[in-house]
Amino acid sequence: MIANLPSHGTRLLSTLGADGTLRLGLAELPVDQPGEDEVVMRLEAVPINPSDLMTLLAAGNPADGQFSAGEVAIPLPPEALPAYAGRVGAPLEPGLAGAGTVVAAGRNCEQMIGQQVTALSLRRGTFGQYATVSTGEFAPLPAGTSPRDGADAFCNPMTALAIAETVRLDGHKAVVHTAAASNLGRMLVAICREDGIPLVNVVRRAEQAQILADLGAEHICNSSAPDFAAQLRAAIAATGATIAFDAIGGGDTPGMLMEAMEDVAAAQMGFYSPYGSMTLTQVNIYGHLDVSPTVLHNERYGMLWSVNNWALPQTIGRVGPERAAAMQARVLAGLKTTFASHYTREISLAEALERDTMLAYARMATGEKFLINPTL
Amino acid sequence: MIANLPSHGTRLLSTLGADGTLRLGLAELPVDQPGEDEVVMRLEAVPINPSDLMTLLAAGNPADGQFSAGEVAIPLPPEALPAYAGRVGAPLEPGLAGAGTVVAAGRNCEQMIGQQVTALSLRRGTFGQYATVSTGEFAPLPAGTSPRDGADAFCNPMTALAIAETVRLDGHKAVVHTAAASNLGRMLVAICREDGIPLVNVVRRAEQAQILADLGAEHICNSSAPDFAAQLRAAIAATGATIAFDAIGGGDTPGMLMEAMEDVAAAQMGFYSPYGSMTLTQVNIYGHLDVSPTVLHNERYGMLWSVNNWALPQTIGRVGPERAAAMQARVLAGLKTTFASHYTREISLAEALERDTMLAYARMATGEKFLINPTL
Repeated sequence: MIANLPSHGTRLLSTLGADGTLRLGLAELPVDQPGEDEVVMRLEAVPINPSDLMTLLAAGNPADGQFSAGEVAIPLPPEALPAYAGRVGAPLEPGLAGAGTVVAAGRNCEQMIGQQVTALSLRRGTFGQYATVSTGEFAPLPAGTSPRDGADAFCNPMTALAIAETVRLDGHKAVVHTAAASNLGRMLVAICREDGIPLVNVVRRAEQAQILADLGAEHICNSSAPDFAAQLRAAIAATGATIAFDAIGGGDTPGMLMEAMEDVAAAQMGFYSPYGSMTLTQVNIYGHLDVSPTVLHNERYGMLWSVNNWALPQTIGRVGPERAAAMQARVLAGLKTTFASHYTREISLAEALERDTMLAYARMATGEKFLINPTL
Repeated sequence: MIANLPSHGTRLLSTLGADGTLRLGLAELPVDQPGEDEVVMRLEAVPINPSDLMTLLAAGNPADGQFSAGEVAIPLPPEALPAYAGRVGAPLEPGLAGAGTVVAAGRNCEQMIGQQVTALSLRRGTFGQYATVSTGEFAPLPAGTSPRDGADAFCNPMTALAIAETVRLDGHKAVVHTAAASNLGRMLVAICREDGIPLVNVVRRAEQAQILADLGAEHICNSSAPDFAAQLRAAIAATGATIAFDAIGGGDTPGMLMEAMEDVAAAQMGFYSPYGSMTLTQVNIYGHLDVSPTVLHNERYGMLWSVNNWALPQTIGRVGPERAAAMQARVLAGLKTTFASHYTREISLAEALERDTMLAYARMATGEKFLINPTL
């Protein structure tokens, strides 16, 4: 018998029906009893990250949805259905990260009761009132740090750190980053400065370039500028970047990045080869802001190139538990500085299912970031 | 003064003019005097490999060419020109591999005069009468092996061996290969059998499936069969393949291979994840039989995938000189068995510039393979 265990809590569920329609709604579900090394946290600040939208919306577009009180029905495009056959009938729980207060705990964690913690919940979603998480999935928030400050100590901050780790592990001198004015992009500016990794920031608008300039970023290329191709090549030549991390993922973006890196490498060869340069250029896709297919013009990228889907867990595996713990400690120490997230709206669980709100957070626009507060 | 050094020899040259037209022709050029560790070989058997066509034709289509006595003029498509700006005005010499007889030699190689050798000529092209190559670029042909047998002891055989090396180096259990009835594909069937690597052969026609079945290949999938998708998934599940080597390169082929490997991996997970499987699936593109852009549907391939342009020199660098020498020795010992090439036509240098002949070899059709005999 666990003291103070809430019996039920509200959760947001996303279920794909056999009819190809995704149904989103709130449900009252029993709270998981914690094991010996587990705690039950009351969630108070939950970020909406792009990875959560994959669980929440699959390939559904909220603009196609039917919104009624407490339920949303979104038909998936028929051509997308085969890819989602595996989730038909299974209620999925969106949300990976979140922060709040421990309200109940298993035997070995009783000293945590009443403490504020931040968590990465891998079994159950964080779009809900409570989450039961185990040691290793949560960490106490440092003194003076609120749940809002520490809502995401895992997804964005660890991804930004893992990008820097990957640049080093793969032997690159410098890195190109797209959607560079995002929350993650701003963290990366600070990390790369601290770690001495030259960073080329690619943004889409002049205001975004200004945000990064104000942060002290050195190399900023605006893809809507008429001389963008030349800007990008100059920054790549100045830094020696041979790897790019791309949050856009679709269309011509990954190829455009590889072509620019190859052009610089080929120009530095000093002779012409019909096979292009022997420099390995690499684009790691880690987001899909553009969901259209990725188009590669292979003949433009030289002899050695690599396009990868890149994800945080793989890099955590590569660096090992000791280094991962050091990365985590660095995040917790910097939640109000390097790893500060900027939320533009705080919403309740019920509001997350309202049409205008959903359309807004599903746009994943740079500079807009939503936080769910399940206590509202 | 080198004894018996021919003063001039015929060479095939490919030059892109500032007008965007590629001009191919034969020229009489001085033969390079050999250094101390070099030999001059009279070329007697020169394979036409896809990599040579990149030098010979760039993005030019022989069907668009003007053919006159000894000269061919092929306008490149205007949209392709920027990628080839670096070669404007420079006469390129196609041809990487070839076999023949040493006719002159530098001081340290005089004992080679009169011997038959096979070479990979990296500085100068092999589409010509003579090539001056250095120690390390050539090897004596084993007794009983003709220059025709040994015309290509480097490009195709070493590529096939390097594919098997890469499968092992990258920790995969089995491999998928496209255009599997090619000369290289047949070598790979024998190598994988000798090395115990399960191989899934993908071909485009029933006749090609039959060729491989006659060679004893176990897993053969015909992409023109109505149940191809199921065939491919069954073969991937049976072998555990998580890497594919793709000679086609363009269009949907790399993505189709990745999707099939991911589907098998996701089905083996035992639970549904909106992010797909955590199995790293990898497609290494090593040819461009389809020159259209590669189209990737990222959301279908799971959490970890990688599309790479793969080339032999990188793998040689990874395995190191000792292993590379062992691979080379294996090729020389097997030129009449495992590494036998099947040539369907022998042509002269002049014939290589005739319209019908060029159209035929530029098709790179599986089952057709051309050999240039510069002594004709």
